[in-house]
Amino acid sequence: MIVNVSKKILIVGLGLLGGSYAKALKRFGFHISAITKEQSSIDYAIKEKMIDEGSTTLDERIIGEADLVIFALYPHVFVEWIKENQHLLKSGALITDVTGVKRNIVYEIQDILRPDAEFIPAHPMAGREVSGVENSTEKMFIGANYIVTPTEKNTPEAINTCMELGRLLGFSNVTTLSPEEHDEMIGFLSQLTHCIAITLMTCNDKEDMEKFTGDSFRDLTRIARINDLMWSELFVANKDVLIEQMDMFINKFGELKSMLETDDIDGMREMMRHSSKRRELFDKK
Amino acid sequence: MIVNVSKKILIVGLGLLGGSYAKALKRFGFHISAITKEQSSIDYAIKEKMIDEGSTTLDERIIGEADLVIFALYPHVFVEWIKENQHLLKSGALITDVTGVKRNIVYEIQDILRPDAEFIPAHPMAGREVSGVENSTEKMFIGANYIVTPTEKNTPEAINTCMELGRLLGFSNVTTLSPEEHDEMIGFLSQLTHCIAITLMTCNDKEDMEKFTGDSFRDLTRIARINDLMWSELFVANKDVLIEQMDMFINKFGELKSMLETDDIDGMREMMRHSSKRRELFDKK
Repeated sequence: MIVNVSKKILIVGLGLLGGSYAKALKRFGFHISAITKEQSSIDYAIKEKMIDEGSTTLDERIIGEADLVIFALYPHVFVEWIKENQHLLKSGALITDVTGVKRNIVYEIQDILRPDAEFIPAHPMAGREVSGVENSTEKMFIGANYIVTPTEKNTPEAINTCMELGRLLGFSNVTTLSPEEHDEMIGFLSQLTHCIAITLMTCNDKEDMEKFTGDSFRDLTRIARINDLMWSELFVANKDVLIEQMDMFINKFGELKSMLETDDIDGMREMMRHSSKRRELFDKK
Repeated sequence: MIVNVSKKILIVGLGLLGGSYAKALKRFGFHISAITKEQSSIDYAIKEKMIDEGSTTLDERIIGEADLVIFALYPHVFVEWIKENQHLLKSGALITDVTGVKRNIVYEIQDILRPDAEFIPAHPMAGREVSGVENSTEKMFIGANYIVTPTEKNTPEAINTCMELGRLLGFSNVTTLSPEEHDEMIGFLSQLTHCIAITLMTCNDKEDMEKFTGDSFRDLTRIARINDLMWSELFVANKDVLIEQMDMFINKFGELKSMLETDDIDGMREMMRHSSKRRELFDKK
């Protein structure tokens, strides 16, 4: 194991994801501390033995002792935190994050970070429709992807440590992508799907339809329950890519509509066969 | 129980759905026969004690003895079957179906059907991504909707019998709608969702994306594995409604894209909050 259990880990932002990190890592015996807004989150996490200690203020000892700091904050809050508080970090500290978009965060943080600390960015692709530390569970990492998005400023050691962290958390697939590759991929696989789900959920306000709904509609709108503050920020942060993906979708959808309008059954069937074949690739292995 | 267990039930078309009907009904002790294309389906169903007897031909005795005939066929095959073979039905036979669109089937069948038989249409809103009698399971009816779509030609007795059938099958919600209400509802809840899923699955052919996919994308494309023969027929049969629903979706999606283009965070957040609130209605109760 590269990450020594004698290392102290600090989690900044003890919500659903931060809490799940704490639960997963505590199994190995790490010393885990947390800084978060609500005292009730800290009380809960201590009671559940997820963390050793925590604070709702910028506790200089806790921050100064941490070898690894995991930021589970909204993107702009993360950037602000580094700007204002990075002087409190231990010299040699490694920091990582959970941010769902990378380009606009990674380069900015790496540019402003102290030279004696290193930021190795990562995106744990896991979530739930509920929030808060009370809903934390390391189960959500099983079968999920953990993507490290290093730049040329990162050391091989930090990259390896971060990948090891993903495996310790329990992620099934730990890989690396450039921030640019990551944002393109996430624009399609995650952001476009959320755009579709919220559109489907709001485009027809006819009453009583919930009485007749089946699993198809439920599946397509599961993610339509969405944290509006976080996702609007993520959408804007990846605007160029997301608009491109939305256009690709609209064009294809228009093709299908044209085929339907002209009774082009052969065309529709070909599209459906292509869809069925391509979907096989995405089955859980 | 309105449907007496001494009644003989015939299932025409022993695939996933017909087979699941057989399994569910056999529990009550009905005499169940089947007519289907493949001898292997009949052999399997007899071995599994799902049916009492079956034939791959138009067995006049089997058809002539059935009090209730359930057609689990493609829409156009169902219409053809009635045209060509309805003289084989018992006088007083009640027939029902599983067709996913109603307007163009219901009135046509009721118009051509013998006056001493009655067609009471129904749509069991249940399915799986696999097909064939071997994948039959009555579990797929749990939590699902069964919709009876009577017209003014139907008797109250037939409507009650068909609703009882839905309950015997194990459906959680058994309701009635007019064929027109049904088709509008299904155009949105089922057909539009399938259009979206196959579009999402085919609009971006970039390689290797399956390596990074999460549950969101999997959920939105589960139904992108689709029976092209059946669904292209269902789409065309409900073309006017489906095009209207596709336009509603496109308009709303365009609104979201405009908000993103103009950094209208307040507008996006309002749409997301509307989406989240509306989605709550659709949670499984």
